[in-house]
Amino acid sequence: MADHDADCLFCRIIAGELPVAIVDEDERTLAFMDINPATRGHALVVPRRHGTDLYDTDPEDVAATALAAQRLAVRMRDRLGAAGVNVLNACRPAAWQSVFHYHLHVIPRYEDDPLRLPWVPAAGDEDEIAAAARDLRGAR
Amino acid sequence: MADHDADCLFCRIIAGELPVAIVDEDERTLAFMDINPATRGHALVVPRRHGTDLYDTDPEDVAATALAAQRLAVRMRDRLGAAGVNVLNACRPAAWQSVFHYHLHVIPRYEDDPLRLPWVPAAGDEDEIAAAARDLRGAR
Repeated sequence: MADHDADCLFCRIIAGELPVAIVDEDERTLAFMDINPATRGHALVVPRRHGTDLYDTDPEDVAATALAAQRLAVRMRDRLGAAGVNVLNACRPAAWQSVFHYHLHVIPRYEDDPLRLPWVPAAGDEDEIAAAARDLRGAR
Repeated sequence: MADHDADCLFCRIIAGELPVAIVDEDERTLAFMDINPATRGHALVVPRRHGTDLYDTDPEDVAATALAAQRLAVRMRDRLGAAGVNVLNACRPAAWQSVFHYHLHVIPRYEDDPLRLPWVPAAGDEDEIAAAARDLRGAR
């Protein structure tokens, strides 16, 4: 896979071809503001090297992006007064991915913000959970 | 911070004191089924060493947990037929954290599942985004 995809929105941002508000960067990653923010301060962290999604991004870039998100989360607490943070990856359209360059949403949370948990937590069926676990473990 | 907190639910799971369906493990991490699954196969990945949340978890454990989540995500695609995946960290009660040991939700997604995005994407005010970016960058 090429490190840069000329048709990729985030690759173009990384190349400096599109204006964004950069808030952090290091050798492997870039962080910039989401233009459709869920809350005040909502940012995205991306690896500089192109990977379409979580499935095909280099593990070293996945690790570096996680560390950059942690660093940004602390800064959101200290500088924006966030009461917490969500870090979210959306992999594939079925999981809400809309830009196909691996990225983490880093979303500062505030006591009175309007975000809602994507699911209603409720006890699952034990047999069904056990069956899914068996499928996941597979042959080892 | 102690590596093990005897009052922590996930530390007790890691110590083998509570029954869970383990689906993956390595030197630094453990993955097991969520008993309140959002979708079929919903699992949690935790570092073996106790950290309360993203803010205070050792960066090496944050990186290892991200890699374990990636590995599990691929397995959910290959073994459960997931069409995508969400990886989510909830840090602090304001962000829906309810067990205070750092963990990633790894949630397989299916074309017809009922999960809803926690926010409604809409263009933010440019000046407000720029102001948040300035606050986030701070003095450097």
